Amino acid sequence: VSRQSLPKQFVKLFTDDTLLEATIKRQSPIIPPEHVTIVTAAAAAKGEPMVHLAPYRTLLEPVARNTAPAIAIAALDAIARDGDAVMVVLPSDHMITDVAGYQRCLGEAIKAAQAGAFVTFGIVPTHPETGYGYIQCTTRNAAPAQLSGKSGLHVSAFKEKPDRAAAERFIASTTYYWNSGMFVWKASAILAAIKAHLPALHDVLTCMQTDVAAGATLQAAIHQHFAYAPSISIDHGVLEAVAASPYNAQKLLLIPANIGWSDIGSWDAVHKLADKDANGNSLRGHVLTHNAYNTQVQAGKRLVAAVGVRDISIIDTPDAVLVTQHGEAQAVRHVVEKLKATSGREHIEHLTAHRPWGSYTVLEDAATHKVKRIVVKPGGRLSLQSHDHRAEHWVVVAGIATVTNGETVRDLKPNQSTYIPVGEKHRLENKGADVVELIEVQVGGYLGEDDIRRYDDLYGRA
Amino acid sequence: VSRQSLPKQFVKLFTDDTLLEATIKRQSPIIPPEHVTIVTAAAAAKGEPMVHLAPYRTLLEPVARNTAPAIAIAALDAIARDGDAVMVVLPSDHMITDVAGYQRCLGEAIKAAQAGAFVTFGIVPTHPETGYGYIQCTTRNAAPAQLSGKSGLHVSAFKEKPDRAAAERFIASTTYYWNSGMFVWKASAILAAIKAHLPALHDVLTCMQTDVAAGATLQAAIHQHFAYAPSISIDHGVLEAVAASPYNAQKLLLIPANIGWSDIGSWDAVHKLADKDANGNSLRGHVLTHNAYNTQVQAGKRLVAAVGVRDISIIDTPDAVLVTQHGEAQAVRHVVEKLKATSGREHIEHLTAHRPWGSYTVLEDAATHKVKRIVVKPGGRLSLQSHDHRAEHWVVVAGIATVTNGETVRDLKPNQSTYIPVGEKHRLENKGADVVELIEVQVGGYLGEDDIRRYDDLYGRA
Repeated sequence: VSRQSLPKQFVKLFTDDTLLEATIKRQSPIIPPEHVTIVTAAAAAKGEPMVHLAPYRTLLEPVARNTAPAIAIAALDAIARDGDAVMVVLPSDHMITDVAGYQRCLGEAIKAAQAGAFVTFGIVPTHPETGYGYIQCTTRNAAPAQLSGKSGLHVSAFKEKPDRAAAERFIASTTYYWNSGMFVWKASAILAAIKAHLPALHDVLTCMQTDVAAGATLQAAIHQHFAYAPSISIDHGVLEAVAASPYNAQKLLLIPANIGWSDIGSWDAVHKLADKDANGNSLRGHVLTHNAYNTQVQAGKRLVAAVGVRDISIIDTPDAVLVTQHGEAQAVRHVVEKLKATSGREHIEHLTAHRPWGSYTVLEDAATHKVKRIVVKPGGRLSLQSHDHRAEHWVVVAGIATVTNGETVRDLKPNQSTYIPVGEKHRLENKGADVVELIEVQVGGYLGEDDIRRYDDLYGRA
Repeated sequence: VSRQSLPKQFVKLFTDDTLLEATIKRQSPIIPPEHVTIVTAAAAAKGEPMVHLAPYRTLLEPVARNTAPAIAIAALDAIARDGDAVMVVLPSDHMITDVAGYQRCLGEAIKAAQAGAFVTFGIVPTHPETGYGYIQCTTRNAAPAQLSGKSGLHVSAFKEKPDRAAAERFIASTTYYWNSGMFVWKASAILAAIKAHLPALHDVLTCMQTDVAAGATLQAAIHQHFAYAPSISIDHGVLEAVAASPYNAQKLLLIPANIGWSDIGSWDAVHKLADKDANGNSLRGHVLTHNAYNTQVQAGKRLVAAVGVRDISIIDTPDAVLVTQHGEAQAVRHVVEKLKATSGREHIEHLTAHRPWGSYTVLEDAATHKVKRIVVKPGGRLSLQSHDHRAEHWVVVAGIATVTNGETVRDLKPNQSTYIPVGEKHRLENKGADVVELIEVQVGGYLGEDDIRRYDDLYGRA
């Protein structure tokens, strides 16, 4: 369901919202979307993610440097807008089923942060998971009284992903929580802690601020200096040092959060959190079952039939289907490795790709030709472009398409068609109020998406 | 994999042969294809089955009347060609892995039949199956010596599908065999037995023979009289009476056959007989596995990934995927019932349909348009036709298509296209030596296959 070109946070898993959209909506009404800043890899923001990021303020990391530098640039961005800003740091690909409970925790955390605390959310662990980091507290007490005001638990240590034996000790001791990667603090406080404990990063931030003071945008300054930042996590690089500091340790609080949280690291996790029928099945899409129990099916328009099965997930997409036993779902990466090794392409992208102007779906991809359905939103306008190796035949099946083909521009109605020879400049546009749909038949010796010369583009891709 | 429009015998399960073709090839060199007569339902012989039946002599049943009348008309056909003909009665949708062993049994059976015997093949049972009929013999002895000459076992009774307790008794007694529905006898002998034990059927056969003597074809006579035949199986209507007859009982022989037989009543059966890898998996098509055991995957071009699963079958087709636990596979019919009840269409036909001239594949089926890839074999010629409700856009992507469009006929090369308005007479033809492929975009308010007026057809469908 997620692909190299479409990371997990841009996927719609349970609703019509992507995990990113769901993460943002979950903060409302406490944090309005216009206060959201997304920090993401520049490379990952191309193609389809661009569509999902478009509504939000975005900071792009030119290279990967783990969480401390990413959080630091977001903090710079926040204090530029409000020197006293509290920032809430959230992974964008997690799931939380108890949104009201989460919002109560968030309210508590913000109050504590306003008073100077570094707040972490500690997920009350349900099993000795070896895939998460843990946070040890002075005492474990998840009673509601503990959640009020600045009464979060005091953090004594951060623990990396443990082995099985350690995880079992952690669970038995009842003073450990899962580290959810969610943090709340004042932007100024985390920048001060970085200055104290990660001077190498502080130096890089200082260079960025100098550039910004000289008139550069923050993004330009990031492009200039980000690569020089140390690659280190905020937990390991800053919070552990805070926990060890006699003066600051008391500011490090953990709010126990029993909120139906998952980082959706496997299909098991999705099934556990999903709504289920009387047989314990979670079913989505065109699905028929008989004697199926504790089974998850994620289907689309294609029929998926599950007969007599138990404890499995069946995940169907237009070009690939995954069947996996619960408890084995993390092994899916082995299949992805095999796919890469055999030059497979199903891990790279979906047959349907979304673009700022609409979307396209590959209906057939053959050596001699490719067939696509192209959907253009009202107001959508593809780039003025040409192809060196392919001709295109367009048949409009819905809406009114405004087509530039060489020197001529004309409107095509449903059941009208046009032919675009190799090398001809052309553009597709929807000036109407209804969606335009057309079938494109590409013919040529090379049919890759990269055979495109862009002369003009509404979305800055030329 | 089988659909309403494509019964099991026309499906390719293990090789590039359909089960029907495999059944016919299995007789060779004993029975050449030109001696084969296929008896099948007239309704089932339409559409794609036509393509598979075309190479063979065929008798069509206008209505279903069980096996006795079907075998009787085949016997009439056989004696018309050779009054002394031995006929081998074979279901066309079974599987036999030990072909050499089968051919040895067949040779024995034919010898016995030439001497006047009614021979059945008794499958040596491996488990108390409740889905098959059984044949009880005087003694059970499957030693090779028993197979020579006329030394088949004597049949004492035919048993309908038993309940579990009875099936277990049958297995324990070691005198029962599975009834495979395969029989060998002289055509004249079975017609004489029908005369003796099924006079109502004999009367109908007499009417047919009278018509044939007056110059009608056998098929015409069948159309005229077949509906009046009693609906009864050959076992129940004739063989049981033979077994009970003091004079004829000794002629009823069973040849024990341990030949890797299956009627392929479930996917379990297919998996049991398939070649397996070291993990006990039988995999076909684009499949990746990790920690999968005793699992069957039938895939095509779409990727199927199986992770951590055990004892299941995953059967993928372009518009539907079935996942079923071994031992539950016969319950697939419940899913088909649900599909019918919800007006599903996946049980009716495949996205790819074969026709005498080639094939077409539905790439997209939407309310406003339908997209197909059409493949025309060299020499293939679609009917001269028109449509009342749809226009068609054709883009040739391979070969040279000869296209009649109204009054004009012209050759279209790859990357050339044409438009066929609603109501226009048109025809597609391949006069070249290479396969023609084209993409068809249909646009119209009604896009059903039945919107077709045929004016002329090479294959007699006008």
